[in-house]
Order: sequence, then structure tokens, then C-alpha cells
Amino acid sequence: MSKFQNRQWIYSKRPEKLVDQSHYTLKENAIAISDLKSGQALLKSAYFSVDPYIRIQQSKNNTWEEPHPLDTVQGGAVVCQIVAINDPKTTLKKGDWVLSYTGWQEYAITEINNLRLLNPKEVSVTTALGVLGMPARIAYFGLLEAGLPKKGETVVVSGASGAVGQVVIQIAKIKGCKVIGIAGSDEKTKLLKEKIGIDEAINYKRYSSAKEMYQELQKLSPEGIDIYYDNVGGYITDAVLEHINLNARIIICGQISQYSGGLDTPEMGPRFLHKILYQRATIKGVLARDYNDRMDEMLSEMTPWVQDGLIQYQETIIEGFNKLPTALNMLFFGKNMGKLIVKA
Amino acid sequence: MSKFQNRQWIYSKRPEKLVDQSHYTLKENAIAISDLKSGQALLKSAYFSVDPYIRIQQSKNNTWEEPHPLDTVQGGAVVCQIVAINDPKTTLKKGDWVLSYTGWQEYAITEINNLRLLNPKEVSVTTALGVLGMPARIAYFGLLEAGLPKKGETVVVSGASGAVGQVVIQIAKIKGCKVIGIAGSDEKTKLLKEKIGIDEAINYKRYSSAKEMYQELQKLSPEGIDIYYDNVGGYITDAVLEHINLNARIIICGQISQYSGGLDTPEMGPRFLHKILYQRATIKGVLARDYNDRMDEMLSEMTPWVQDGLIQYQETIIEGFNKLPTALNMLFFGKNMGKLIVKA
Repeated sequence: MSKFQNRQWIYSKRPEKLVDQSHYTLKENAIAISDLKSGQALLKSAYFSVDPYIRIQQSKNNTWEEPHPLDTVQGGAVVCQIVAINDPKTTLKKGDWVLSYTGWQEYAITEINNLRLLNPKEVSVTTALGVLGMPARIAYFGLLEAGLPKKGETVVVSGASGAVGQVVIQIAKIKGCKVIGIAGSDEKTKLLKEKIGIDEAINYKRYSSAKEMYQELQKLSPEGIDIYYDNVGGYITDAVLEHINLNARIIICGQISQYSGGLDTPEMGPRFLHKILYQRATIKGVLARDYNDRMDEMLSEMTPWVQDGLIQYQETIIEGFNKLPTALNMLFFGKNMGKLIVKA
Repeated sequence: MSKFQNRQWIYSKRPEKLVDQSHYTLKENAIAISDLKSGQALLKSAYFSVDPYIRIQQSKNNTWEEPHPLDTVQGGAVVCQIVAINDPKTTLKKGDWVLSYTGWQEYAITEINNLRLLNPKEVSVTTALGVLGMPARIAYFGLLEAGLPKKGETVVVSGASGAVGQVVIQIAKIKGCKVIGIAGSDEKTKLLKEKIGIDEAINYKRYSSAKEMYQELQKLSPEGIDIYYDNVGGYITDAVLEHINLNARIIICGQISQYSGGLDTPEMGPRFLHKILYQRATIKGVLARDYNDRMDEMLSEMTPWVQDGLIQYQETIIEGFNKLPTALNMLFFGKNMGKLIVKA
């Protein structure tokens, strides 16, 4: 067979608030091996990464780049197998597992240079999307280089049961910190305690205000908060900022509570910069792509941790290419535990 | 004469909003030279420092320390002359000019250790309160160490015509930056251009919204903002944060727009942490006292700059000890140009 029936999810309408299936259009076409130019590979998509940043790129304003163009295949990381390859010099071969950025389509043609070879004998290939992928990279460098965790310090992580949060918690534990997680259900907080080894976990939905959550944080950390790794923003962050210590480090990795509308028309919240002044705190925004060229450094330390079980991970895997837009929507209701993946 | 009739301004009532004379009580007493213990000096106050931080310490909440205690002499820096001294070993002598922290009283007794000798032949003694005092210290270390200015970068300074702002502007110019100031009157912006050598200056009162001010900033700095030195906060800061560049450094030195009530009951403003994420920016709170032990380092570089006229300074001097609470109130209406001082 030299021709493959292909389906693609086209990003076709900008969401104003929540993103869902109505913002995507399914398109069918065909890809032929004969389409391959020199230096290219034909890939069969196996596992699609579903990430909060996809919604950021749908903001009408520029973010760290221009908005994702409409009427193109939704971008994103995918774990694929090579179907065919047109390059006599490469060591890559048919059947190899690779990580590519070819987005939401069942088959894709891409340059070989863009691929990262995965070893399924070492770890599950899906880890390349989560615990050994982009989320881990920003968890690792964000916590270690912007957070500078020291033994005995107290770290709070929001979005604690997400793909980034779970890694941050476990690296902070390895570094000898006390870690408090904030997540969105009792099931998640239970799991964080039982499987991820967190010291304390809060279900933010149990608190009707930032003030009540702050009071709970006070109880759980009378010593105050030295590092806050924020994936969520909004009133969770309001609560945490009430309780930071002198020279606290606040790492802004995500603001998922704001993505469904709040990026275009910012939500109002209490001003807090005077608290940053009082505590001579630092807030730093961190983005995974800034550490792209340090992937090997992260993997060399993290892979053994994952292999040895020092770092545990969860994945929520949704079956079916047709479920991709639905899965993206799920992220904003916190329906995933750990990394959210769609299996083709 | 060995007994001195003394007046003291007692901080007697906590302000909810603006601070004024109603929050102070004038008290009279007498100080005698015979009251001096060994190692102490009797001082006659000449110039009182009037600083925004005084209002921060009147917040009902803890800030970087507990609130200023009620029914005590209002604290603060004062330039004094030594009237009498009880220590045979000291090189200080009657008539010497010194900087002390004895607050709002006409005469004071204090430990000699707490005094810093001033040299009126070198520079005016009032500079010890402003351009070579605490405001200069935080301007200097805040800009240089949290801002890390590089030649050719664009720096925005809020509270530009205040004691800190004017110094920040001129150090940034010395470092080869383009500097835009935000101040509260056309008179101030004119003066910043004519006397302080700023590149551009904005009178924020000419803009009815953060958005309009942002548009003006865009015009004045199409290249974007690399460093923002913030003394004001509120909607001025909202406007600036719309226009920051990648890896921008934001220095929070003051938030004077929030002091008259907003510290106790925070004002609402648009959430912005997603912008810090997009630009991988850093926000850092800085406080003058953290650099107390590096005063000599600052003075050794700044004193020649001031002597050579490379750094200009203004002072607004109000005559009369009885005007101290009124002068403090003036700060929050921006009635001062440069350092606000009350002359005894």
C-alpha cells in the first residue's frame, strides 16, 4: 500500500471562551509515499499530546508568538511510527518510534531533522509527551532554575495533579522540600498523597474564597511558603500570595484558570504587587521552549528517576482520533490525571 | 542652656485612607543635657525626611515588619546637628552634622553608634535624605542589581519625578539606556526633560485609561520596554505591562497609588500574570533596608556623580516643624518635585 487515507483536525474557528469540537473541522485527504521528498519521513500518528498551551495560542492577541493560524491542522506533539523514509543516510528506519510536532492528523510527512527517536525498551513511548517530554522539561528547569529549591523549604504547586505539577512535586521532594499541592478534586488529592508522595494536598473546590484557602494554607504550612510553582493563576494564586515568605520565588508556568477568555479580556483580581515588595519576592515566567536545547540534560537526570520509580507518573489516555477536540475541552474541567493523551 | 524645650509629632491614630494632621498629635516636653547617658548624643533636628514608606507602616497589616506603633514619635530619618555628646572616645563633636533615625521631634537623644557623620563641605547635608540617602540607595541597587540595565535598552520609570525616580532615570542614562518617565503633571514632565535629561516623559493624568497610556507608550517606544522601575503601581503599571519585551525586568520599589487604603483592602485590577509568562519576564520586589550595609559602596560611586553634576537633584523643602503631617499628606497628591523635606 503506497497511499494512506488520512484524517486531519483543522482549527477552523477561534473560541471566545471554552474551546470544544465546534472550533474544529474534520478533513479527509490522502497521503502517498511518492509524496516524500528527500530527507522526509512519512509517519503514522499513535499518541497525541493534549496541552493547555493549545488554548493560549487561540487567544486573539499575540502571546509568545502570533496566534495559531485558522484553517490549518491543529499543531501539537505526537508520538508516531515511521511508515516510510526517503533518506539513504539516516539511521532512522521504518517502524521506529519517534516524537514529532506534526499535530492532529493520522498520517504526516515531515523533515527527518524534526524527529526525536524514542526507545520503547527503555520507557513507554508515551512518556515522551509527559514525564519525559515538554511538561517534564519545564517542570525540571522551571523549578530548579527559577525556583532554586533548598532542602527544608516549603513548595506549593497549583495544578498539582497535571502533567507538569506531578513532576514538580516529585523533583521538589527529591530536593528535600516539603510540598503542598493544590488540585481540583478529592480523588486527585488522595492520589497525590498515595502515589506521588506529596506532603499535603488541598482540593481548592472545597474553599469558597481565596481567604478560606489561605487560612487552610496557613494551617498546613505555618512556616510560610518559599516557592510557588503556578500552573493555574486566578484566586488560587491570590490565596498563595497571602502566605509567601521573605525572598519567595514564584514561578509562572501556566495560568489555566484564565485561558478560556481571560487572556483576551483579563479577569479582575486583587492587586498584590505590594506583597511582592514586602517580601522582596521574585515572580518569573517560564516557558518550555526556552529549554528546548537542554532536553538531553533533563533526560539524562530524569530518565533514571522514572526507570527506578523515584518519579511516578499518571496518564489519562482517551481512545480515538475523533475525540481530540473533546479531550482538549476536558483539560479545562480538570478531567485528566497526569498527562492527557489521545490514542489514535 | 542645658534644657531644651522640645516638640514631638506623635503618631496617634491609624489612617484608613489618606493620612493627614488628624492622625498626629503634637506633644511638648523638655530634654536636658543631663539626660545623656554614656555613648549618647543630644541632637537638634534640622531637616526631616518625608517618605512614602511612612504610610505603608501605617497599614493595619504587617508589611515587612509590624505596623508603626501608635502613640510613639513618628519614626524617620533626620539631618541633625550635635548639641552635646557624652563619650570621650568618639571623634564626633558638638556642631557636627549627622544623619539619624530619631523621627519627628525637634531634639532627640540617641546612641552615637546610630549616627552617620555628614560633610557639609562635600555636598549639601540635605542630600543625605535624598540623592545620597535611602532613596538613592534603592534606586542604585534596585536598578543595577534587579534591573541589570544594558546599553541601548529601554527603561520606564513611574513616579519619575520623585526622590527615587529621578535617581533611577539618571543612572539608567549613565548606563546608556533610553529612559521614559511617567509623572503626574506637565510641569514635572517638562522639568524631567530640561533638567534631568530624560528621553521621554508622560503626564499620566492626560490619559483616561491604562489602554490610552499604553498606546502612548507604544508610540514613544515602538521597540518595547526592557526594564520597568515601578514606584507607583495601579493602572500605570497595568499600562506598562502591556508593552514589555521578552525577558523584561520589573522592579517593584513602591506602589504609592495603593498606599492610602489599598494595602488593607486591595484594589481590583486586571490579572496580568499570563503576560509575565508570555514574555518570560521577572518581577522583583526591592527594599532599601536590604542594602543598608552597602551604603558606602553606593556613596563611593554616586557622590562624585552628584559633585560633578552628572546626577542632578531636586528637593522640595517645606518650612516649619509644625508642617510635618501636612507634608506627608502632600506626597500622596504628588506635590513634591524630587525629595520632600521639612526644615525645622
